Amino acid sequence: MSTREEILGAAQRRLNLDPTSSMADIAAAAGIGRATLHRHFSGREDLLTEIGARSLDRWEERLDAARVGDVCSSDDADRLRATLVTLLGQYLEDSDDFGFALTDQFVLAEPTLTARGEALAEREIELFAAAQAAGVLRDDVSPRWISQACYGLLVAARDALRAGDVPRRDLDTVVASFFLHGAAAPGKPL
Amino acid sequence: MSTREEILGAAQRRLNLDPTSSMADIAAAAGIGRATLHRHFSGREDLLTEIGARSLDRWEERLDAARVGDVCSSDDADRLRATLVTLLGQYLEDSDDFGFALTDQFVLAEPTLTARGEALAEREIELFAAAQAAGVLRDDVSPRWISQACYGLLVAARDALRAGDVPRRDLDTVVASFFLHGAAAPGKPL
Repeated sequence: MSTREEILGAAQRRLNLDPTSSMADIAAAAGIGRATLHRHFSGREDLLTEIGARSLDRWEERLDAARVGDVCSSDDADRLRATLVTLLGQYLEDSDDFGFALTDQFVLAEPTLTARGEALAEREIELFAAAQAAGVLRDDVSPRWISQACYGLLVAARDALRAGDVPRRDLDTVVASFFLHGAAAPGKPL
Repeated sequence: MSTREEILGAAQRRLNLDPTSSMADIAAAAGIGRATLHRHFSGREDLLTEIGARSLDRWEERLDAARVGDVCSSDDADRLRATLVTLLGQYLEDSDDFGFALTDQFVLAEPTLTARGEALAEREIELFAAAQAAGVLRDDVSPRWISQACYGLLVAARDALRAGDVPRRDLDTVVASFFLHGAAAPGKPL
């Protein structure tokens, strides 16, 4: 007897391994019949939309827990810097759990998810802008670009983890250090 | 009378705008009937595989034109640095042309494309490793991670361009500068 939560968890793990998984693959991975899966979700798009919504729930929880609004108005460089690094570590954890939703074309184009994702992105962009104003982040690029670059590095981190290019224990340090300082050798600016 | 090349070009532009486009959408965008489209391509997967192959052709041409093998064995820091920046600019051009292939789940999982993509990635990783050995890039992270991060920044750049977050004329500079130096304010290391 699988609950809806258990089915969603199994679907998510299966889709992370193979984003092209069919409803039959997902039912098999959840250990249920296709009829049972279809009682819970009318189709693959319905299931993907719910997983996409859960990934946005997680993002929202992270921003809420970090008290992003307070941190932005604090204008406190140390607090801004610490919040950025903490959030980045949490995003890395989440991009492992919700890896497929990061780049799934259906999830990224679904209108209700897109609208909600844009509103969350605005909160994050506000944090990057505050970090720029406090001298933590460079201010010669737009905070929107910093947000896009952060997303791109999460995609890279998810892929690197799966390919075994970076051990899990080093991932937070490697990604935070790359996000802040890039790939150039220290003291050798281009 | 559309040639196969013209159809592929139209399909690529259509898929860049909407990666979930159906064969009917693609036929309409190419100004041909579905029967004509199906005479050229047995199905959507066949068409996507061909576009994926063309994106790998482009990548291979870029690596060949940059004479990556010679540059690697030169151990010449200035040449390595210049080659990296040139290639990054070319990849940005290509990720605009082939944007959807960067993250399409079918293209990324198709076995013949994957095998070829891995061989090209090895040539690129060799270049990053040579740049590390010559003191151009930091050597405290694996060259495989640098290659993944470079890919992630191309995804970010494609999205930023589409969202209007970075003007096209600034894109090369913004991405190269972020790739090399990251998001931290200068002189404010974490």
